Amino acid sequence: MTTRTLFMLPGDGIGPEAMAEVSKLIAYMNSNEDAGFKTEEGLVGGSAYDAHGAAISDEDMDKAMAADAVLFGAVGGPKWDGVDYDVRPEAGLLRLRKDMELFANLRPAICYPALAAASSLKQELIEGLDILIVRELTGGVYFGEPKTITDLGNGQKRAVDSQVYDTYEIERIAGVAFELARTRSNSVCSMEKHNVMKSGVLWKEVVTATHQAKYSDVTLTHMLADAGGMQLVRQPKQFDVIVTDNLFGDMLSDVAAMLTGSLGMLPSASLGAPDAKTGSRKALYEPVHGSAPDIAGQGIANPIAMIASFAMCLRYSFSMISEADRLENAISTVLDKGIRTGDIMAEGCKQVSTSEMGDAIVNAY
Amino acid sequence: MTTRTLFMLPGDGIGPEAMAEVSKLIAYMNSNEDAGFKTEEGLVGGSAYDAHGAAISDEDMDKAMAADAVLFGAVGGPKWDGVDYDVRPEAGLLRLRKDMELFANLRPAICYPALAAASSLKQELIEGLDILIVRELTGGVYFGEPKTITDLGNGQKRAVDSQVYDTYEIERIAGVAFELARTRSNSVCSMEKHNVMKSGVLWKEVVTATHQAKYSDVTLTHMLADAGGMQLVRQPKQFDVIVTDNLFGDMLSDVAAMLTGSLGMLPSASLGAPDAKTGSRKALYEPVHGSAPDIAGQGIANPIAMIASFAMCLRYSFSMISEADRLENAISTVLDKGIRTGDIMAEGCKQVSTSEMGDAIVNAY
Ligand SMILES: CC(C)[C@H](C(=O)O)[C@@H](O)C(=O)O
Ligand SMILES: CC(C)[C@H](C(=O)O)[C@@H](O)C(=O)O
Repeated sequence: MTTRTLFMLPGDGIGPEAMAEVSKLIAYMNSNEDAGFKTEEGLVGGSAYDAHGAAISDEDMDKAMAADAVLFGAVGGPKWDGVDYDVRPEAGLLRLRKDMELFANLRPAICYPALAAASSLKQELIEGLDILIVRELTGGVYFGEPKTITDLGNGQKRAVDSQVYDTYEIERIAGVAFELARTRSNSVCSMEKHNVMKSGVLWKEVVTATHQAKYSDVTLTHMLADAGGMQLVRQPKQFDVIVTDNLFGDMLSDVAAMLTGSLGMLPSASLGAPDAKTGSRKALYEPVHGSAPDIAGQGIANPIAMIASFAMCLRYSFSMISEADRLENAISTVLDKGIRTGDIMAEGCKQVSTSEMGDAIVNAY
Repeated sequence: MTTRTLFMLPGDGIGPEAMAEVSKLIAYMNSNEDAGFKTEEGLVGGSAYDAHGAAISDEDMDKAMAADAVLFGAVGGPKWDGVDYDVRPEAGLLRLRKDMELFANLRPAICYPALAAASSLKQELIEGLDILIVRELTGGVYFGEPKTITDLGNGQKRAVDSQVYDTYEIERIAGVAFELARTRSNSVCSMEKHNVMKSGVLWKEVVTATHQAKYSDVTLTHMLADAGGMQLVRQPKQFDVIVTDNLFGDMLSDVAAMLTGSLGMLPSASLGAPDAKTGSRKALYEPVHGSAPDIAGQGIANPIAMIASFAMCLRYSFSMISEADRLENAISTVLDKGIRTGDIMAEGCKQVSTSEMGDAIVNAY
C-alpha cells in the first residue's frame, strides 16, 4: 500500500473546525479505499505564536518540507494584532511559501450553479463561471529587499517595500499558466502595469517570449492590472486562465472569488517545481477565505473551501483524479440538495452545522 | 471681472472629442455668466510625442504650472505601444502629477439613478451608491527609486520597483480624506496591506495618529486592500470615503468605477496642497476612463466623464458651487430624459452623438 504523508496546519479561527471535516474524509478514504494517508498535525499563525513565540516553529517547518503535501487552514485574528511584525500570524504562511518555494498559486474562481443567485453580480454574468488565476507566490513585493521602516528624525519615518522580479521567476509561472490553459480553454491573459512599473515591463516581455518559444498554440492576451480588475467585474466569463504577479494576484483573486458569490467555497493550491527525478512537487493547499475569528468555535463555519482544497491536493499532489472528481461532485450534489451552512443559506434550503456539512459531503462522496 | 485660466490638454484617442464638449460649456458660461474663463491648449501623451518626441514639452509643463486649473483628456493608444519607456504617453500624465505635486486624487464612484440597471451588480446593491476614493497620487511604487531593469547576464534580467512612503505623505492624504468625510457621511476606511508591506504598517500607524490628533469626530476603520476589493464587490454601499495608496488606489478605484455601471461618466480631481497665503491649489481634472482608441474620431464617445470633471473643477478650483451643482444636475436630467451615447444605450432611450450629448447638457444647464 502506498503511504501518502499529509502535514496538517489548521491554524487559527475557523481553521481547525474546517480541517476537522477533511480529517473525516481522510479517515473514510483510508478505511474504504486503502488510500494510505498518514497525517500529522502542527501549529501555525497565532496558535503557534502562543505556543512558542513564532508563527511557525523550525520543527514544524521541517515536517512541512518532508511531507507529500501540506494542508493549511487559516491564520490571524484580533488577538495577535499587536504582536511584532516578524512573528505576526501571516509570517508563518509566508515562510511556508518561501521556504518550500511554492511559486505557483492556483486559485480557481468557479461559480457553483446552486449558488449563482448568491453572487452580487447579475446571475447571467456569473453562471457557469470558471476562471483559474495563476498567481506568482514567492517573489515581488512580498519578499523583495529592502523592506524597512527607517526613522528619519523630525517625527518622520520612511517605509520601503521592494518589488523585485527576475526573468526565471516570470518564465516559470508563465509556463505553469500555459500548461494549465492547455487542459482548459487554451487561453491565458497576463496582467501587469507595464505603463508604470519596470517589473511590469519585464513581466510582459518574458511572458511574451515564453509564449513564442514554447506555447504559441495557446491564445495569449495582455491587460493592465487595473483594467483587469474592471473587466473581472464587467464580464468575468471572458477569462480562462489569468497569470499575474504576487500582489496583483492577491487583489485580483479576491475580487474574482467574491464575484462568484462562493467565497466560502473556494480552494487554492500552492505548488513548487516538479523534482527533476521523481516529478513530485512540494505543495500546500488552503482555502481562499480567512480565519473569520468572529464566527470561530461556534461550529457554523463553512468547511467546503477546505474540503475543496483537499480535492485539489488529491488532483495535484497524488494524481488521484477520479477521487478528486468524485469529491468535487459530492460538494455540488450536497449544494444541489439545498444543504447549506449559514453563510450561504437561502430560502427553501436546510441550514446545517460545519460538522453536518462535512458528514453530508462524506456521504455523497 | 475675474479671470480664470484653464490649460486644456485633450491628449489622444477620444480625449479631444470629449474636451470639445467642455469648450462648448465654457463658451456658454463666458457669454451668459461672465465666467471669465481664459483657455489655452497644449499637447500631451502620444500627440505630444508625435509633435516633439516627449510625452509633454517643458513649455506646456510651464503653462500647466501657471494655470488656475488643468483639464486633461486621456492618453495612449496602440500607435505608441513601442515607444521608449521614458516618453510613453503615460509619462506625460505622471510628470504633470509629480511636478504639480498633485498628491490627492479624488475619485467619486457614484451611480446615476438612470443607469443603475447598467451595472453588472444587482440593482439593489448599487442604487444610490456614493463613494469617494481618495488616492495618494505622487508617492508609492509609481515614483519610488530604484526603478530599474538590470541585465544579470545568462539571459537573466532583474526588474525593480520601489514602494516608498514618508510620514508626511501619508499624513497629508489622510487629512484630505478626513476633511472630505466631514462634508459627507463622516466616515473613512483606510486600506493597505500591513500584513505584508512595511509601507502598510506605516500607513496604518500614521492614519491612526492623524485621526487621533485632529479628526477623532470622524469614524475611522481599517481594511486590508485585498479584503477591500472583495467588500467593494460584495456590499459597496458600506463605504463613504476610502483612503489608500497610489497603486491600491489605481486598482480599487477602477473596480469601484466599473461597479457603478457608469464608467464613461466618472470624473476625477487631482489636487495639490493649498497655498499658505492664497489658499489656492494646483489642480488637474480628468475622466477616469482611458483614451478608447477603438472608437476615437467617430463622434460617438461619451463626453459625460469629461464634463463631470469640469464640474469638479468648478467646485474645487473656483468654489463655483452652485454652478457645479447645476452642471451635475444637468447631467442627471439629460440621463433621466433617456438621452444616451452608444456605451450607455438602453431600450426606449434615444442614441445621440458626442456633440449632441454635449449640446443637451449645455441646454439643461
Ligand atoms: C494572509 C496574507 C499574507 C495572504 C496574502 O497576502 O498573500 C492572503 O491574503 C492570501 O491571499 O493568501
Ligand atoms: C494611465 C495610468 C498611468 C494611470 C495610473 O496608473 O495612475 C491610470 O490608470 C489612472 O488610474 O489614472
